[in-house]
Amino acid sequence: MKWNLSSEQMPQAWFNVAPHLTEPLQPPLHPATREPVGPDDLAPLFPMALIGQEMSAEPWIDIPGEVIDVLRLWRPTPLVRARRLEQALDTPARIYYKDESVSPAGSHKPNTAVPQAYYNKAEGIRRLATETGAGQWGSALSFATALFGLECMVYMVRISYEQKPYRRVMMETWGGNVVPSPIDDPDHPGSLGSAISDAVRDVVARGDSHYSLGSVLNHVLLHQTVIGLEAKEQLALAGEERPDIVIGSCGGGSNLGGITGPFVPDADVELVAVEPSSCPTLTAGRFDYDFGDTAGLTPLLQMYTLGHDFVPSSIHAGGLRYHGDSPIISNLVKTGRMRAVAYPQGKVFEAAVQFARTQGTIPAPETSHAIRAAIDEALRAKEEGVERVILFNYSGHGLLDLGAYDNYLHGKLVE
Amino acid sequence: MKWNLSSEQMPQAWFNVAPHLTEPLQPPLHPATREPVGPDDLAPLFPMALIGQEMSAEPWIDIPGEVIDVLRLWRPTPLVRARRLEQALDTPARIYYKDESVSPAGSHKPNTAVPQAYYNKAEGIRRLATETGAGQWGSALSFATALFGLECMVYMVRISYEQKPYRRVMMETWGGNVVPSPIDDPDHPGSLGSAISDAVRDVVARGDSHYSLGSVLNHVLLHQTVIGLEAKEQLALAGEERPDIVIGSCGGGSNLGGITGPFVPDADVELVAVEPSSCPTLTAGRFDYDFGDTAGLTPLLQMYTLGHDFVPSSIHAGGLRYHGDSPIISNLVKTGRMRAVAYPQGKVFEAAVQFARTQGTIPAPETSHAIRAAIDEALRAKEEGVERVILFNYSGHGLLDLGAYDNYLHGKLVE
Repeated sequence: MKWNLSSEQMPQAWFNVAPHLTEPLQPPLHPATREPVGPDDLAPLFPMALIGQEMSAEPWIDIPGEVIDVLRLWRPTPLVRARRLEQALDTPARIYYKDESVSPAGSHKPNTAVPQAYYNKAEGIRRLATETGAGQWGSALSFATALFGLECMVYMVRISYEQKPYRRVMMETWGGNVVPSPIDDPDHPGSLGSAISDAVRDVVARGDSHYSLGSVLNHVLLHQTVIGLEAKEQLALAGEERPDIVIGSCGGGSNLGGITGPFVPDADVELVAVEPSSCPTLTAGRFDYDFGDTAGLTPLLQMYTLGHDFVPSSIHAGGLRYHGDSPIISNLVKTGRMRAVAYPQGKVFEAAVQFARTQGTIPAPETSHAIRAAIDEALRAKEEGVERVILFNYSGHGLLDLGAYDNYLHGKLVE
Repeated sequence: MKWNLSSEQMPQAWFNVAPHLTEPLQPPLHPATREPVGPDDLAPLFPMALIGQEMSAEPWIDIPGEVIDVLRLWRPTPLVRARRLEQALDTPARIYYKDESVSPAGSHKPNTAVPQAYYNKAEGIRRLATETGAGQWGSALSFATALFGLECMVYMVRISYEQKPYRRVMMETWGGNVVPSPIDDPDHPGSLGSAISDAVRDVVARGDSHYSLGSVLNHVLLHQTVIGLEAKEQLALAGEERPDIVIGSCGGGSNLGGITGPFVPDADVELVAVEPSSCPTLTAGRFDYDFGDTAGLTPLLQMYTLGHDFVPSSIHAGGLRYHGDSPIISNLVKTGRMRAVAYPQGKVFEAAVQFARTQGTIPAPETSHAIRAAIDEALRAKEEGVERVILFNYSGHGLLDLGAYDNYLHGKLVE
């Protein structure tokens, strides 16, 4: 069962969660002075419109018409009831998922790539540089810049560049330029930290470009709230008053922030973050100011962190391998509004395959963390004999991650 | 711009094109006796319900409720207006496409895999065997059998098995068993002909299984007519009285038959088949009885054919490399109701990349044949200064074909 909204029913404004937090967000600090950064400090990297959104306390922020026009290529996305999964679990719970995998890049990432490309173009920027690990974000930004006629430069973690050539080809198909990072050491396998440093140095050196980030920051989570806003409308169409629980996987926090953000003011809705136990930022990290990158070039953010020099094991959910977390998500967890759980990847792939064999589609490893938690919540509802309405974010498909499934199905997965 | 139908608006019956043909279809002939085959000849391979559909003259055939329930996992599929492509072409034409890539297997193939699994299960069959070349059909049948609890055995052309491991993994994720074909010669690269022979021999030898075919046959095209039926409804929602032209790529003819079938009675709607010039069945083949497979095990079908021993060059659109064609499509072309065009693959990938950079999604190489023809029709409308309503079938995505894009983008494509 699917609930679609028409093109006209797409949200016209983003939902800003900042004014709904019980404790205010603390400002980012300058990496050198450790003083709060102002708009001018960020201007070499971002357009003023995004800097304004990053610091805004307005409850709603209008989505520009040109952004809506592009988002409508795939939005509104469907809300799906996972009836076959419910039947397989024999649960009284009703499980719904918001299908963000239908975007051209196959994940929720274009929801922010499109407005980022738009605002940069509107301020006269003709080229964006970014980093990508597993490739989801680089794909989304290559797609978005193609539609706005901007150049796109992607620094891709070298080991992914070599092991995942299809992700590179996807970016190139949209016209993106992709180079392996670190650019100055062809023997180094690279890391997200080194790739961020390459992208920031590129922007600072050239002067005609801006930098673009696909998660963590407030304006990124803001752009993702279309997910939760649509889901609210669609749950009403499905006859549900509200979800009892909303679940999302968490790497930097953008898909999680997107689906949970509009539910933050609804005190009777439980919010859950799911992370890999090999990179347990929210469940085992400390709440502190830390750098966003390994080299210490970015401002310090107040967040849960494993330390900016933390090196997670190379699990297949590459999008969840980040030492820190979005300040908004960190705030929600710190204040008790959101709960966090962690799973090892074997349990995650078990859930992924059960999902594929009941609902049909093959989820991304990242997304499968949310599926694992949704299944466990549904099984708990069965044990307790209670109806529960479970909503999770199906943040992306796994069609470019089939090598991971191969390892799982043939007993080659490392926990 | 997208037009969605609700789950309740899915077609409840398939449209049978047979009674609308100006010349009747000729019966298949037995491979040994060359006499018309009867239901009993086909019973070892297919369930009686499908044999009945193969020979039916009824104008409509009801879709069973259990089949509708599964098709609703992704149907109705969206109808999309390709406005950004129109703008890039600066054409007065209005281009619409029916997006069949949203199915779990990523193409139109599950539209027939699901009813085939259903009817076989209903007649007590617990295992299906089939062949697959590039892997689209094997994926679709593995998906469908998973949902109905049947075993699935896929004989995959060995060269594809080795070169496209992700397709194998996709089938295995749904629980399919995949082996390289020919099974008796591990040094042979294989062919669709040898894989059909392996699958038919498997079924005949075991006695507890049936065979399943993903294209060519009348019942397969029947199941695909949900595409054209939904498109008709959606064009009306978009304010279009009718399309001027309906376009589909053609290998065995199933996606083409699915989108064009319901328009066959509408004499003012032009129907166009698009094939690769390296396998020009409709544009350069002869109209004759021929075998469906290389080894001559299947009944003879009256169709356009390049000869059952024809070996097409190994273009990337593996799904279009078939020596013959659906008898229904062949009949439409022979009687002048449908026109056929052929393109070399360089022109096809040029269209694919233009589509990706305007509409966002990356099409399958097979689908890109239809896109090439749609673009050329739109450019012709521009030259002639006339409005035209163009509808084409977006039969599948290219996310498991990115190696082909790599070759095209880096000048390694062979014409």
